[in-house]
Amino acid sequence: MLVVIANTEIATIPGISVAGATPELTKFTPPADVEYVLHGKPLCIDAIPVTPQGHPTPAIITKASYELAGFAILPVRGGSILPPQTPYVEVTDKPGKDFRFGRAIVDVERIIQKGRMLGTQLEKMGFEELIIGESIPGGTTTAQAVLTAFGYDARTSSASPENPRRLKEEVVEMGLKRVKELSDPWEIVSEVGDPMLATVLSVSLGFGKKIVLAGGTQMLAIAAALKAMGEDLNRFLIATTKYIVNDSSATFADTADEIGIDFWAAKLDFSQSKYKGLMDYERGYVKEGVGAGGSVYLAEKRGVSTKEVIRKVEDLYSQLKEKME
Amino acid sequence: MLVVIANTEIATIPGISVAGATPELTKFTPPADVEYVLHGKPLCIDAIPVTPQGHPTPAIITKASYELAGFAILPVRGGSILPPQTPYVEVTDKPGKDFRFGRAIVDVERIIQKGRMLGTQLEKMGFEELIIGESIPGGTTTAQAVLTAFGYDARTSSASPENPRRLKEEVVEMGLKRVKELSDPWEIVSEVGDPMLATVLSVSLGFGKKIVLAGGTQMLAIAAALKAMGEDLNRFLIATTKYIVNDSSATFADTADEIGIDFWAAKLDFSQSKYKGLMDYERGYVKEGVGAGGSVYLAEKRGVSTKEVIRKVEDLYSQLKEKME
Repeated sequence: MLVVIANTEIATIPGISVAGATPELTKFTPPADVEYVLHGKPLCIDAIPVTPQGHPTPAIITKASYELAGFAILPVRGGSILPPQTPYVEVTDKPGKDFRFGRAIVDVERIIQKGRMLGTQLEKMGFEELIIGESIPGGTTTAQAVLTAFGYDARTSSASPENPRRLKEEVVEMGLKRVKELSDPWEIVSEVGDPMLATVLSVSLGFGKKIVLAGGTQMLAIAAALKAMGEDLNRFLIATTKYIVNDSSATFADTADEIGIDFWAAKLDFSQSKYKGLMDYERGYVKEGVGAGGSVYLAEKRGVSTKEVIRKVEDLYSQLKEKME
Repeated sequence: MLVVIANTEIATIPGISVAGATPELTKFTPPADVEYVLHGKPLCIDAIPVTPQGHPTPAIITKASYELAGFAILPVRGGSILPPQTPYVEVTDKPGKDFRFGRAIVDVERIIQKGRMLGTQLEKMGFEELIIGESIPGGTTTAQAVLTAFGYDARTSSASPENPRRLKEEVVEMGLKRVKELSDPWEIVSEVGDPMLATVLSVSLGFGKKIVLAGGTQMLAIAAALKAMGEDLNRFLIATTKYIVNDSSATFADTADEIGIDFWAAKLDFSQSKYKGLMDYERGYVKEGVGAGGSVYLAEKRGVSTKEVIRKVEDLYSQLKEKME
C-alpha cells in the first residue's frame, strides 16, 4: 500500500481545510500521518493530527488495519512541504500552488516521469494489486475543481460535518475562470489540481495491473482523469468508507456512477465507542483519509474483519488519549 | 533489487577513486548510474560515468541484466550528494565525511531507524530474497578501514588495475589513529565507514529473510559488521564478479572465508569483445559496482544466461559509443 503525501496552498485559505488544528498546522499533517502509522507517533511535530475540534486523523484507522493485517505501507512524497521521518519514495518536494492565481503544479513533467517509473518498478516487483491512499489537506477542493473542469456537476466531501460548500465553490470558480476552457486531462490536473493527484495518476499509468484508489471524492477526480486519458476503469476500484458514501453534502455515489468507476465502502461503526472523539466519526467528522477505507479493504482480504479493526482503533485511541493527558 | 547510492569525501582525495573522470565528477556518479540503468541515460549530468581512462561504469552490466530479466530496481539514497532523477527511497541526504579528521557518518541514528523500517516494509511486501547493490566512489577505502577496525588483515579491491594500496593504507591508518580502539560495530561503521555501509546494514537488520549483498570487497565490510552484531550469516550471500575474486591486489576470498560468508561470482567474460573499453574489464578495470555481479545472479535465477548478459552489454556499449561520437 502506498500513501501519497502532499500539500497545497489551497489548504491555507481560511475555512477550507480542517486537516490540522489550524491552517498553518496542515503543513505537518501529511508527514505526521505516515509517521504515526509506521512509528506509533509523529516525529516531525509532537502531536497527533487533529481537526480544530480535536477529532483524530483517520490515520488511526489505517494504523489499526496495518497492525492487524501486517501489510506493508510505503509513503510517497508527492509534494509534501516536509519529508516524513520514515523511509519514503521521493517523487516531488514541490507543494501545489493556489490555483486561483496561477498553475497549481509547477513540475508536472517530473512527476509524470518519476511516478510512471515507480508504477513500472512496482509492477516488476510482481504485485498483482496496488492500494494507493493519500494525505493532503485541502485536497477535496482541488478535487472539486478537477471534477468540475472535466464537466461533472460534482460536490466533494469535507472532513468537517459542515462542508464549506459555498466557499469551495467560490474558490473553484475563481480557478476555472482563470484557466478558461481546458480539455487536455494533464492540463486540467496541472492547472487546478494538486501534486497528489498527479502522482497517483502517474503511478497508475505506470502500473498495469489492478489498482485500488483508497480515498473518497478525491479519488473520483483521479478516476475522471484516468477515463479522459483513455484508461480502462475496469482495473480500478475506489475503496472508501461509508461516511463518504453517506455524505449528503457531496455526490460521491452519483459521480462515481457517472464516471463509471466501481467502489467499495468500509462499514466502520463507532456508534458504540467509549470515546466522543470516535463516536463523532458517525456524525460526519473526518470521514476518510490516509487510505483509511482502503486499509480496511486490504485487512478484510487478509482475513481481518472490520469489527476487529474497529476494536483496534478503540485501543489505539485510548493509548493516544493517555499520551495526550 | 535495491541500489544504495552514496558519496563520501574520501573519494575526493586525489588518487583514491576512479569512479568518475575526475574526483569532482564522482559527485555525479551514483545518481547517474541509476539514471542510466532506469532511463537509458544519465539525467543529472550529460555523460555516462567513466573512469579517467574512459572505461564505462559497471552499471552497463546491471542494465543488461535488468533489461533481459525484467526484475525491479529501486534506488535508495543512502547519502548521495545529489538525488537521482528517478523515483527513489530516501534514507539520508548526508554524504560521508573524511574520516581522517572526524566522524564519517553524521546521522547514523536516522539511518538506522529509516533503514530498518525500510527492511521491515520490504519483508511485509512478501519478498523472500532481497538483492542490495551499491554505488559509492571511494567506498573501497572506507570498507578497508572498517575491515581493519574489525581486526581483519584485509585489502579491498579498486576499480583501477593499479590498486592505490599504499595511499589507501595511509588514509586508513590516519583514520584508525584518530579513533583509537573501537569495539562497538555501529561505532566502527560510524567513525570510519560511510553512509552506504550504514544503510545496507540497517536494511539488512530490518529484513529478516535472505539477503544477497551485491558487490565486492565493500560487502565484506558489511558481512564483518553483521557478524559482529550477532547476525546469522547463513541468510546472507555475497554475489560479485570474477574480477573481484581474481584480484590479486586484494584478499576477497580469504577475507570472506575468515568472516564466514558464502559468495558467488558472475563468470563475465569480455575477452572476445569488439570494444577495447569492455575488453579492458578483463585487465582489471572497473571490476564491480552498481550491483553488477548480483544483477547477473538474479538474471540467472530468472533463466537468463551470463552469455546473454554479455551479449546485451556489448549491444548497450555500442549504443553508448554511437551516442558519444
